[in-house]
Amino acid sequence: MKEKLTVVKLGGNCMDDQHLLQMFLQKFAELPGRKLLVHGGGKIATELGHRLNIPLQMIDGRRVTDSDTLGVVTMVYAGLLNKKLVALLHALHCNAFGFCGADGNFIRAVKRNSIPVDYGFVGDPSDVDCDLLNALLQSALVPVISPVTHDGNGQLLNTNADTVASVIASAMSEHYEVHLLFAFDKTGVLSDPANDASVIRTLTEAQLSRLKEDGKIHSGMIPKLKAGFSALNSGASVVTIQHVSSLNTNQPVTKLHL
Amino acid sequence: MKEKLTVVKLGGNCMDDQHLLQMFLQKFAELPGRKLLVHGGGKIATELGHRLNIPLQMIDGRRVTDSDTLGVVTMVYAGLLNKKLVALLHALHCNAFGFCGADGNFIRAVKRNSIPVDYGFVGDPSDVDCDLLNALLQSALVPVISPVTHDGNGQLLNTNADTVASVIASAMSEHYEVHLLFAFDKTGVLSDPANDASVIRTLTEAQLSRLKEDGKIHSGMIPKLKAGFSALNSGASVVTIQHVSSLNTNQPVTKLHL
Repeated sequence: MKEKLTVVKLGGNCMDDQHLLQMFLQKFAELPGRKLLVHGGGKIATELGHRLNIPLQMIDGRRVTDSDTLGVVTMVYAGLLNKKLVALLHALHCNAFGFCGADGNFIRAVKRNSIPVDYGFVGDPSDVDCDLLNALLQSALVPVISPVTHDGNGQLLNTNADTVASVIASAMSEHYEVHLLFAFDKTGVLSDPANDASVIRTLTEAQLSRLKEDGKIHSGMIPKLKAGFSALNSGASVVTIQHVSSLNTNQPVTKLHL
Repeated sequence: MKEKLTVVKLGGNCMDDQHLLQMFLQKFAELPGRKLLVHGGGKIATELGHRLNIPLQMIDGRRVTDSDTLGVVTMVYAGLLNKKLVALLHALHCNAFGFCGADGNFIRAVKRNSIPVDYGFVGDPSDVDCDLLNALLQSALVPVISPVTHDGNGQLLNTNADTVASVIASAMSEHYEVHLLFAFDKTGVLSDPANDASVIRTLTEAQLSRLKEDGKIHSGMIPKLKAGFSALNSGASVVTIQHVSSLNTNQPVTKLHL
């Protein structure tokens, strides 16, 4: 029997709301067994870019990362937010250890092809070092991972945090029974976006296609669900999408099914 | 016989000069045996603070760290510079792993008393977790450490990088034969500040007192030498102060003696 591992992705919006964040961290700290946290941090990076007069460019919900924006992303994700989460988790007696994909060459990535769309310094993960992650987990550390990767040749790359969580969950499925848990500020995937009680309890890829066709799922959710199904197809045991307050509870959540 | 460990502190000024930095990283990557890097990053943090209209306050060469400044320090030291160093070292086949004192509760610190001088969110290290550092070193990782610590209660603290290098060198002396090496943009401690060839080859605390009295050693060097003598008094085998280009060479350096 494989040991259980919970890979939690914390949505960027939750980083801006102290109440939501503290609620989440308390739940996360109490989560039993091996666990790790992958975080984003969209709005805070956007705000810092604005203060530094770095124009924000988005295509299909993804940030275009020029050199200045990469600096902002590295500062905010790998510095400010990563270390804030680590310090707050230690205050909750959770032995957090923060790093990014470049550290120990943990996530090697490839700069995305500039054709058809040039996203700049954006990386797609090509390889995850499970041994390093496993060694940290077995040392009773709780990895807190920011979605900055590198190409191995000295170039840092901005990487989608949902994708990072997904590739970690996939790779670690060889060694652990993995639950990939997307925690954010909604109760799950909703059939009626205006109604938090309309959580779709189980979702298959076929149902997702229909919801997309009906326009019921909007842009930000699509890459998250794609990342979730990718992990499920690559060995993750359970993939859920749920509210930050619902960890360790019986609240309804969206569970992906093959 | 204890294994050797080189604890290298890279001076902040060298982070601004791409030529100096690349020269240093090449030398550091080639350094044989176990090693780790502690870095500062003064000017870049100062520049970011300026761009964000956060006023810079310094007392006796030490930054006063209000809440906004702590954010800047965390972004620049633990994010931008730490990850830049890690990515560049990987390009030189050095298995760098970047983190800060808060990660894994590696350096616990105490917020400095606000009397007689209120330095704000500045921490003095109280404890170093040698086991964690040792586990990373024995996994063939090269720790790259930014001088951000925490108080264990959720508060990050800005900490002097020379002090961080010194306490790490002291603590690790129990397990390793430690060489603490301060690398910066001067050839060493100079008897004539205008003459790079006037390196004082050996320096005792008594000689340091005389040089201070004669006004031959200026403010920035004093805390560095204090940190060096502190490590030497606490078990470090060798403490040197030298130019970034002099690692692995026979160039003259300043060596501290008890």
